[in-house]
Amino acid sequence: MTGTTTDTFGAEIMSRIDDLAALSESPDGLTRRYLTPEHRQANDLVGRWMGDAGMTVRQDAVGNIIGRYEGVSEGLPAVLIGSHLDTVVMAGKFDGMLGVITGIACVGELNRRGRRLPFAVEVVGFGDEEGVRFQSGYLGSHALAGNFEPALLERRDADDISLAEAMTAFGLDPARVGDAARRAPDVLAYLELHIEQGPVLESQGLPVGVVTTIAGATRLAVSLTGEAGHAGTVPMTLRHDALAAAAECILAVERVCAESPNLVGTVGQIAAEPGASNVIPGSVRFTVDLRAAEDPHRTTALDELMVLLEAAAKRRGVAIEIEKVHEAASVPCDAQLSDLIAGAIERSGWRVQRLPSGAGHDAAAMAGLAPVGMVFVRCEGGVSHNPAESITAADAEAGARVLFQVLNDFPGGS
Amino acid sequence: MTGTTTDTFGAEIMSRIDDLAALSESPDGLTRRYLTPEHRQANDLVGRWMGDAGMTVRQDAVGNIIGRYEGVSEGLPAVLIGSHLDTVVMAGKFDGMLGVITGIACVGELNRRGRRLPFAVEVVGFGDEEGVRFQSGYLGSHALAGNFEPALLERRDADDISLAEAMTAFGLDPARVGDAARRAPDVLAYLELHIEQGPVLESQGLPVGVVTTIAGATRLAVSLTGEAGHAGTVPMTLRHDALAAAAECILAVERVCAESPNLVGTVGQIAAEPGASNVIPGSVRFTVDLRAAEDPHRTTALDELMVLLEAAAKRRGVAIEIEKVHEAASVPCDAQLSDLIAGAIERSGWRVQRLPSGAGHDAAAMAGLAPVGMVFVRCEGGVSHNPAESITAADAEAGARVLFQVLNDFPGGS
Repeated sequence: MTGTTTDTFGAEIMSRIDDLAALSESPDGLTRRYLTPEHRQANDLVGRWMGDAGMTVRQDAVGNIIGRYEGVSEGLPAVLIGSHLDTVVMAGKFDGMLGVITGIACVGELNRRGRRLPFAVEVVGFGDEEGVRFQSGYLGSHALAGNFEPALLERRDADDISLAEAMTAFGLDPARVGDAARRAPDVLAYLELHIEQGPVLESQGLPVGVVTTIAGATRLAVSLTGEAGHAGTVPMTLRHDALAAAAECILAVERVCAESPNLVGTVGQIAAEPGASNVIPGSVRFTVDLRAAEDPHRTTALDELMVLLEAAAKRRGVAIEIEKVHEAASVPCDAQLSDLIAGAIERSGWRVQRLPSGAGHDAAAMAGLAPVGMVFVRCEGGVSHNPAESITAADAEAGARVLFQVLNDFPGGS
Repeated sequence: MTGTTTDTFGAEIMSRIDDLAALSESPDGLTRRYLTPEHRQANDLVGRWMGDAGMTVRQDAVGNIIGRYEGVSEGLPAVLIGSHLDTVVMAGKFDGMLGVITGIACVGELNRRGRRLPFAVEVVGFGDEEGVRFQSGYLGSHALAGNFEPALLERRDADDISLAEAMTAFGLDPARVGDAARRAPDVLAYLELHIEQGPVLESQGLPVGVVTTIAGATRLAVSLTGEAGHAGTVPMTLRHDALAAAAECILAVERVCAESPNLVGTVGQIAAEPGASNVIPGSVRFTVDLRAAEDPHRTTALDELMVLLEAAAKRRGVAIEIEKVHEAASVPCDAQLSDLIAGAIERSGWRVQRLPSGAGHDAAAMAGLAPVGMVFVRCEGGVSHNPAESITAADAEAGARVLFQVLNDFPGGS
């Protein structure tokens, strides 16, 4: 990745980021959920870029878009480079997309140079990582890694559409999701470049870093059922207010997580029914997201939290149901791949910063199939999951350069 | 109200209650907001019943449906009997509707007997009392009482439709809302029959009671603006979580109101943005509803609450805006009308129970125009604003009987 073609590399990546960010379900901010018309448009656009970079393009059985650049001979095992194309609600434009676009840029560069490696390179744009629509993350990478959970097909989104129905509407066959699974011998490694979404690299003045571990996470769906009633006539002492109970739970999440510097906990979604200003809420649903780089920190906090939530509900005469909708142990990145990445960073002239990832990534799901390695790119203020998410073109280019170097340094690659 | 016609009176009222309850925006529970197609259907149905009872029917400039039964000569001042036809979300079927249907039943009985009183009787079905759609209650009764606030025309509902736009879509002219106002000399009194929505009459074993005062109320719309961010990467100590701040505010409302037995406070609506399980909420909006029979209890609590809310927001680095969207002082019912009601109850053979109303009613708005009197009807368990809201046909008939007697006892009426 030297010479005139690379000088505008960062600019091309940034331009493609903007093109993808234009595909949004809402006009006033980027929202692109799994299996929506905008997901279709994103797959089409990314597929065109993959084709332009010399790849053969297909959409797999779960809706991931995959480009394949053959090695020195056809059908060789592949190094996969990927990240996701779905977003949170009112998202930033780099989270996920940067890894897909950078992967395509690397293959485009191989293609421009007419280079074939002793392995194939595939770039994957996963359809669902954030889990916004069906409250279950990594649907795309779990399916590719062969760990898709068929029971999820019955799960319903906020519009009461099941995952199976959404797949059918998208043109997929829910009975054939298993076809998305890849065989381990065909996948040499999985590499993912992603914005850090935290403040460490910025504080160190570094454009890129090597990820050591991906934090484990637990996601809960909590339902509280109290008693609706007239806001003017039911004395405070006779109330079973589901929202007041939820408020107590939210503060318990905050309190438990404040006890450990390595733990974070978030209530991101809440809905109170019936939802009128003059009616006592009879039921409330909310989510809890708990994460820690060290699994024992998370599981201990979870146990403590369950006790607090159940006690708060019981004291208020409110019924509580706590469903664990997602759980992922922390995932260490592969030591050899991490050393390759570190070497590439060093050769580019930067100090090597190793850091854990507080956020989950497709790499965590892909670790079930192949060794994984991750490159982090600095982002402004550590801000992510927010329209203010921002990186520089120079940092995008730095990340792409490291990724390209890793491909070249990969055993058998140089 | 004696003889064979009245024996099935309660049954007819209950049957009409069910007919009105079938006009709902949602199939799984009764919701009928102001200026919706279901409001139109309710006005049409109630207008037919009014016509059947011998009334001339018109819809006024704000969407109230009004039937008029002339007195011994045309154009006499009128006694108004009214209540509202709109509902909360997932409502009970008696709140509001019972007063309108009972009023029609009384006029129907006069009509069957061929009786004309020395005053006209009008029955009003108010279009908006609950304020669910535009977060401002009593729109119908305020307009009729000549106290409609024109600035409200710009207020927008959850679908971003302004009140003016909704009126136009309903076939009303927002520029002519003032035409709904009645002249004080034309209105002798306003009577309202309503379910108690509380537990007092049931605990006393009485079907009906006389309302002494309608509680004052303050409704707030609170907006919190913190900072959205990734649920996995922002340390707890660096967060400005708008939902955690809201949780603290909700518990403050509860705590302040628990300090006084005469005070109730409710957070009934809440919305957190962006609203994904893995994103720290950047903004939250919620409502606060405060009520007390004695105004100083409410205003003191409001002052205390404002201080607590602002302190909680400040400590968390979250911006707070508190808008007072509704405020109504407590309203005493007219002493002479209340004595008329008490006399009618006594003559029916029941002990007279006088009690304040914790809930607001159109009578509170109508007190700006005429003396008001209210009859309460017992409801099961005090439950209201809830699909479980329930009364017996016998109690409905008891209420109608009292109302009919008051009309007959009204000065000049017998």
